[in-house]
Amino acid sequence: MIGGGQLARMMHAASIGLGLRLRLLAEGPDVSAAQVVHDVVVGDYTDPDTVAAFAAGCDVVTFDHEHVPTQILHDLEAAGIAVRPGPEALVHAQDKAVMRERLGALGVPCPTNRVVPDAAALVAFADEYGWPCIAKTSRGGYDGKGVWKLDGPEQANIPFDGLHGLRADAVVIAEEFVDFTRELSVLVARRPGGQAVVYPVSETVQTDGICVATTTPAPGLRPDQVRDLQAMALRIAQELGVVGILAVELMEARDGRIVVNELAMRPHNTGHWSIDGAVTSQFENHLRAVADLPLGSTAMVAPCAVMVNVLGGPRTDLLGGLDGLFAFDRAIKVQLYGKDVVPGRKVGHVTAVGDDVEDTTGRAWRAARYLRGDSDE
Amino acid sequence: MIGGGQLARMMHAASIGLGLRLRLLAEGPDVSAAQVVHDVVVGDYTDPDTVAAFAAGCDVVTFDHEHVPTQILHDLEAAGIAVRPGPEALVHAQDKAVMRERLGALGVPCPTNRVVPDAAALVAFADEYGWPCIAKTSRGGYDGKGVWKLDGPEQANIPFDGLHGLRADAVVIAEEFVDFTRELSVLVARRPGGQAVVYPVSETVQTDGICVATTTPAPGLRPDQVRDLQAMALRIAQELGVVGILAVELMEARDGRIVVNELAMRPHNTGHWSIDGAVTSQFENHLRAVADLPLGSTAMVAPCAVMVNVLGGPRTDLLGGLDGLFAFDRAIKVQLYGKDVVPGRKVGHVTAVGDDVEDTTGRAWRAARYLRGDSDE
Repeated sequence: MIGGGQLARMMHAASIGLGLRLRLLAEGPDVSAAQVVHDVVVGDYTDPDTVAAFAAGCDVVTFDHEHVPTQILHDLEAAGIAVRPGPEALVHAQDKAVMRERLGALGVPCPTNRVVPDAAALVAFADEYGWPCIAKTSRGGYDGKGVWKLDGPEQANIPFDGLHGLRADAVVIAEEFVDFTRELSVLVARRPGGQAVVYPVSETVQTDGICVATTTPAPGLRPDQVRDLQAMALRIAQELGVVGILAVELMEARDGRIVVNELAMRPHNTGHWSIDGAVTSQFENHLRAVADLPLGSTAMVAPCAVMVNVLGGPRTDLLGGLDGLFAFDRAIKVQLYGKDVVPGRKVGHVTAVGDDVEDTTGRAWRAARYLRGDSDE
Repeated sequence: MIGGGQLARMMHAASIGLGLRLRLLAEGPDVSAAQVVHDVVVGDYTDPDTVAAFAAGCDVVTFDHEHVPTQILHDLEAAGIAVRPGPEALVHAQDKAVMRERLGALGVPCPTNRVVPDAAALVAFADEYGWPCIAKTSRGGYDGKGVWKLDGPEQANIPFDGLHGLRADAVVIAEEFVDFTRELSVLVARRPGGQAVVYPVSETVQTDGICVATTTPAPGLRPDQVRDLQAMALRIAQELGVVGILAVELMEARDGRIVVNELAMRPHNTGHWSIDGAVTSQFENHLRAVADLPLGSTAMVAPCAVMVNVLGGPRTDLLGGLDGLFAFDRAIKVQLYGKDVVPGRKVGHVTAVGDDVEDTTGRAWRAARYLRGDSDE
């Protein structure tokens, strides 16, 4: 496992029952997953020698994030080590320009988009498709960083200036601003041979580009819409040759269109509900896929699951917060990530499952607000 | 956590979401839990200096087994380290003579019993209460070892000879042979302050003293019987001052009596179903109790849960066995313990949850037989 964040941490929990032995390449000795995995190597995942030494003796390499340089992954494969998802697939989650081009070729609905070399080209694009306009870095963005909403030509330099803070191999993509009413997400798990399973569609609430909550199944979708979205996600996973979890992030526009926003190829924040709300969590199914084991049922264990992220707030002692939280909700489920509390940082999440979406939503939000220490709770 | 077996391994999985940091005192560098916990100390839990050095800096010490000498636990407490369950409670799970005397004083139904100093006293007991007669070592027995069924006076020396192989501080207890039709189990989790929760009653199938399967809830009990058994288990936990999980193992006699067979003060094989079948697993509730956090709901997530142990059999590559197992049952849940396969050794378990007890039982048994490599599957 390359990367020691909370996704690796939760994958480790899922690996224990499967009897898989996890070796972790961590960014530091005390990052989230390094606290709980036995076999930890601390090193830089952008250094080829570090990664090669780490991976020697591993049966298969997978990821907590998409940031490992493509060449390093090719080198691992050349050395005979299975990389899942492989670099040919992963590039679609690493480079949004490659992703947009490929999805366009597949006829998958996306916002109108174009790679723009400079501010003038960006202005030309937006003059054609309308302001405001979205600009994105093709590589290196995450959690809202590297995405800009531009209101007019006077802001057209912002993404090019911002690019310098990100990375040299990135380009700017101009995209049609989609006036969306909500965001959705579909997760697929896929094995090397092609067997795949798809989770129910989730509605996801994003604030400043950060996922803060999901409701599963997404309320208000017609059964044929659900089927179409699941079929589209399965097709993308198949066409791109994904192994492991593919998360397809979607925007539902005011005019009813549903278009693809982003792809991720790893367990995804919008699938955290599955730990407590599905027969098989996304973390277990990612590991099963990567280990080339048959995938588990994605059926829900209750009619409704609501996950709310705990973003760093007034409370710094989260474990202390569990005392009150568990006292008022005996059925709430919590994952803490072992991270220091920094304002706005994802430090944990809570999940409520239940029969009634309103009640379940209320329980999950109340729990998350309490845990972060909001004064009204 | 003292002891590195599969119970510690499954507790570690539960500790991750709670944000607890587990430190493990393991019997060897590659025992079941040592494979998955970050902070592992290898050492002898019967050595006072080893345990003291291990526990220094821990907020609280708990256990994977009941075999830590009582004096060592008193020493830890004297050094200001919380021990949960504490030695005053734990002795009732360490010493069956102490347990029988205490339960008798509490009026809890037990088989008629008497500590017997020699074979003649054993014969006198059995002549009074009937042959066959059960003899048990008070200390050091496990998984059927240290328990003998004696058919007549000519076998009365067996337990006294057997005692030498066990331990010097043990005595022999003679017990009435209970002609039981089945065994039952009730699990309680209890916090230091007294808050406690109780799980549904399980039926457990034992072969040669080893738990091989459980069905939860136990079929055929009347609601008032369930309430009485749960109340009895809660009362025992309260009277004995247990912190953590208390497992009360019961025998249902042919004449309808239900009597206590054994007590354990740690997560118990008869509660493994709760990982997949309850809102809060026994492992999470043990940790919550030990960390003095409010306990989680013990409600079932489905009408029925069947757990079957995987005992070492023809298949030595269990991970390889998952391939076929997951292919024929997409909803089966598995815990592998990371142990080498030795005939009869507990190397994992499977759990099926469902609506119908017959169907669920069939799924669980088929999965366990397949995983151990029985030729008829």
